[in-house]
Amino acid sequence: MRSDNPNVQGIKHMAFAVRDAEAALEAYSKYLHVPADTEITHFPKSGNKVALFYLGGIEYQLCQSTAEGGRFDAWIKERGAEGLHHICYAVDDIDAALAHAQAQGASLRECKACKKTGSHAHPEGWVAFLDNDAGGIEIEFMQVYTPEQLKAWEEGGAEAV
Amino acid sequence: MRSDNPNVQGIKHMAFAVRDAEAALEAYSKYLHVPADTEITHFPKSGNKVALFYLGGIEYQLCQSTAEGGRFDAWIKERGAEGLHHICYAVDDIDAALAHAQAQGASLRECKACKKTGSHAHPEGWVAFLDNDAGGIEIEFMQVYTPEQLKAWEEGGAEAV
Repeated sequence: MRSDNPNVQGIKHMAFAVRDAEAALEAYSKYLHVPADTEITHFPKSGNKVALFYLGGIEYQLCQSTAEGGRFDAWIKERGAEGLHHICYAVDDIDAALAHAQAQGASLRECKACKKTGSHAHPEGWVAFLDNDAGGIEIEFMQVYTPEQLKAWEEGGAEAV
Repeated sequence: MRSDNPNVQGIKHMAFAVRDAEAALEAYSKYLHVPADTEITHFPKSGNKVALFYLGGIEYQLCQSTAEGGRFDAWIKERGAEGLHHICYAVDDIDAALAHAQAQGASLRECKACKKTGSHAHPEGWVAFLDNDAGGIEIEFMQVYTPEQLKAWEEGGAEAV
């Protein structure tokens, strides 16, 4: 990171749109030594099945829509191909990150899972999506919860953090 | 990395297919604080213009074909969208990495720049491409040169390493 950029800390995760999370995980397992028994988690609220693992120090999420026309299904159909859907960047202050991006001309995109625009509470932290991609890649920002904030989220949900 | 996987060391770089390297760099600069004065290098042999920078500890390459029908131009036209073209994984022994992948059913893809299939010398190291993607992402392996090998390459080219 540049010394004049204290806000963007690094990559929180990369989310890939895949047709079949099991098949994509199998390829990562066969060719890149990702554990074959990586759990595939179903998120009914978001309508996704996700295989999550770490490779090269980066969190990968292989995301399959569980319903036709879902977020990742629609993305694949638009392109006729699977691929990298978005990169989530960890920031130390999401309000400052969004203010900076907006001062640079960015606008905000609705979170498809929550139907909220701008910073809002997610299970791991506050997140927001830009409506401006970078070289075709959607940008998400996340201010990851502190352990205390995570506890508050787990006990009380979005209202508690 | 898993302890039973000494061969895949991590991500060497991520190569994004973009329509306009200047425009893509501008977005990374405005929203993600990448230096706006990042150099865009022209590689006549490969027919690419590339903006290279580090973000979150990862090497990003924003790659624009300089001729219609070039590697990145064709990829974008197939999808109607820019995106992540391939991930290059650093390995400590490319022959072992390829043997392992092939034992798992992988086959090899020709390097578009060099018209060579399998491990061959590139400016930074020995590289090879798999013909099997992982969740839509092309896989490249690179065994990065040691300082001595890099010197030999710079002085004598592919025949010298």
